[in-house]
Amino acid sequence: MFDGPLDMLVRQLASLPGLGSRSAKRIALHLLSAKGTKLDSLLRALNEAAKSITTCTTCGNLDSSDPCRICKDANRDQETLCVVAGVADLWAVERTASYNGQYHVLGGVLSALDGVGPEQLSIEPLLSRLAAANIKEVVLALPATVDGQSTAHYLMDRMETFKLHITRLAHGVPVGGALEFLDDSTIATALKSRARL
Amino acid sequence: MFDGPLDMLVRQLASLPGLGSRSAKRIALHLLSAKGTKLDSLLRALNEAAKSITTCTTCGNLDSSDPCRICKDANRDQETLCVVAGVADLWAVERTASYNGQYHVLGGVLSALDGVGPEQLSIEPLLSRLAAANIKEVVLALPATVDGQSTAHYLMDRMETFKLHITRLAHGVPVGGALEFLDDSTIATALKSRARL
Repeated sequence: MFDGPLDMLVRQLASLPGLGSRSAKRIALHLLSAKGTKLDSLLRALNEAAKSITTCTTCGNLDSSDPCRICKDANRDQETLCVVAGVADLWAVERTASYNGQYHVLGGVLSALDGVGPEQLSIEPLLSRLAAANIKEVVLALPATVDGQSTAHYLMDRMETFKLHITRLAHGVPVGGALEFLDDSTIATALKSRARL
Repeated sequence: MFDGPLDMLVRQLASLPGLGSRSAKRIALHLLSAKGTKLDSLLRALNEAAKSITTCTTCGNLDSSDPCRICKDANRDQETLCVVAGVADLWAVERTASYNGQYHVLGGVLSALDGVGPEQLSIEPLLSRLAAANIKEVVLALPATVDGQSTAHYLMDRMETFKLHITRLAHGVPVGGALEFLDDSTIATALKSRARL
């Protein structure tokens, strides 16, 4: 059924995260049947992004300038640094509009299973930043998984020499979450860190 | 958070069928963080497809040649024509490898609600094909929806002047389908057209 270029496009689309071969076919059809409009604007957007988006050498964020707009922003708190695993996490924290400090993107978490060691992550750059800049608090916003938590512990050990407040995101019941569908360890954690009303 | 080119890319991706703003962001991040490899091969595939894929003027299929490889294939049955609503349906029938005739893509179904009339569909070209070619049977493989069925009836009326066997896909219990989760009208139809073992 599929010949060269169509097959190639579907395979490329299907390799994107969250897309399978069925959704890739659907997107390919959509792009090709509205050719000249849809396909062209997607091509333009991809070309533009490929040309101008770069990784910030300070924090690891993706932006069209280096340093990125967050690192450049003099109005942001220069004494707080939030450590995240990936750029998606940075965007998620930024979306809340409740954090106004700096970021540092690790590029993943330590994982024995996936063979990710400290040298694969942006840990040395983080320590150099802490040595050079006047950071007072480091917020570890790492995933609440075993790998995320062991990465947090590893970072705490490495940052011991600096005079820092090291904090982590609170664990508990998600806002809007029903108790009955929540896993036991989240409920247990939420109970342990219960707050006075 | 988002600036020009990144924002534009996410918006373009989010406008594709099946993708929302979250999955579009995830894909944009994936493409940009593996830049030079992922993004380039997607760009190449899109450019290639934009350049070479065209609509077959005979049947309406998308292919890199016109007439498409199905219309060109002399080994296929020239006397049977399968009418489908869209190219995705053509691909779905073709995937089964149990049909070896010709196709005709209508480009949709009649819909009073969406304002789709006969002149928006490839119906005149279908009638011209029937007048010119030696078609013996037309299989209406249209969706089993109200619009699909009224399109089938409309087509039957229009094709009355031709000496044709007009058939439709069988309705019934999907293979592997459990009765208890099936809607009543499918079960009723399957009962009515029950077959002797």
